[in-house]
Amino acid sequence: MSEVVSHQEHDNEWFFAESIDQFERPYRVNFINGLSGFKSAHLVGTCDDNGIDNLAIFSSVFHLGADPALIGMIVRPDSVDRHTLANIRSTGFYSLNHVHEGIYQQAHQTSARYPADVSEFEAVGLTPQTIAESMSADTGALSTKVPFVKEAFVKVLLGLEEILPIKANGTLMIIGKVLAVNLPAASVNQQGVIDYQSLNEVAVVGLDSYYQANHFGRLSYAKPDKELTIL
Amino acid sequence: MSEVVSHQEHDNEWFFAESIDQFERPYRVNFINGLSGFKSAHLVGTCDDNGIDNLAIFSSVFHLGADPALIGMIVRPDSVDRHTLANIRSTGFYSLNHVHEGIYQQAHQTSARYPADVSEFEAVGLTPQTIAESMSADTGALSTKVPFVKEAFVKVLLGLEEILPIKANGTLMIIGKVLAVNLPAASVNQQGVIDYQSLNEVAVVGLDSYYQANHFGRLSYAKPDKELTIL
Repeated sequence: MSEVVSHQEHDNEWFFAESIDQFERPYRVNFINGLSGFKSAHLVGTCDDNGIDNLAIFSSVFHLGADPALIGMIVRPDSVDRHTLANIRSTGFYSLNHVHEGIYQQAHQTSARYPADVSEFEAVGLTPQTIAESMSADTGALSTKVPFVKEAFVKVLLGLEEILPIKANGTLMIIGKVLAVNLPAASVNQQGVIDYQSLNEVAVVGLDSYYQANHFGRLSYAKPDKELTIL
Repeated sequence: MSEVVSHQEHDNEWFFAESIDQFERPYRVNFINGLSGFKSAHLVGTCDDNGIDNLAIFSSVFHLGADPALIGMIVRPDSVDRHTLANIRSTGFYSLNHVHEGIYQQAHQTSARYPADVSEFEAVGLTPQTIAESMSADTGALSTKVPFVKEAFVKVLLGLEEILPIKANGTLMIIGKVLAVNLPAASVNQQGVIDYQSLNEVAVVGLDSYYQANHFGRLSYAKPDKELTIL
């Protein structure tokens, strides 16, 4: 294992809750939202009972477990995400579409407050595509009308499993089961690891800071008396 | 707004739940764990009632809300994280320490199954430091013995707010309130946005893929009839 490297000395400062509470609101929101570090950026595709598509960017999607295959997402009931929430409740399905460098501005634009009868796909210039359209085949039970983003490289169809209210701040955690995955076969290696650098996926910090990521290595499974190796 | 750029054509493939269920276990775990995309990497510091430190890497830390300032984290009760969970329950405090390039191998090594009486700090070569030690001052109510990682650049002290059981897979969501933050003042801009590139923070995908991130821009607040600008 390499030595600990202190890249540079930083002048660190402490901020306590009382002073953080005094920050002006936009500063506070940026600061607190940034504390958790890098996040993934996903476009969540849904449709309502009338078949009107909705698309909204989320940076609160997280891995919950591999067996069963579950993915979590935090939704604020009072935000622009409200169409997403209503649609998931009523159809039981939603799609995750990973944001890459080629569509990150379109993805960000979906956070604008469009009226319910406007499709964000059209408004921002992305293409909706159902599973059936993508496969040009009958997909049986999964022939849901939920739209995917054609331009995304990694797409996941989720089935609603549970909506968990979070008392501490009135948000909701939506838990979805992985029903189908669409991605470039060449981006998955023999161990099942997905290479997100080759797909130009972006990471996000806070509300609006986008990052491009370079893979610098996989580390071996850690054991108490074994040296790590870079795979 | 820029045109949608199709960086390259990819040969996409569909995988459905039935075939994903047939993947061999390590492949399946890597594949599913990777589906949510980029994650943050945090070292979670705790101590037990006897003052024995514990340090464990987590990639399931996420932003929950800015007002009140809350951060969520998923814990599996049956995993190596169990000391972390027990310590948080018994002391009510824990620290998040962001992983940067200079300590990512030490951070990964904390995932090895060390016995409860071994301090991972010592085992992997990182330095525990309490708030009082870091400030060389009496910190009153916050003079908890919870260890921070001296070598980390961004550190957050959390107070336990709620533990939420997730029925769907038996995991737990730990919700913490931000009590104190320690970071380089120069890494926060006038809008409260933290620059993680200057701090060499890493992002993680799946169980063991580490990425270095380059900031390529902040995007303006999105409105329906306004062009986005890069800030």
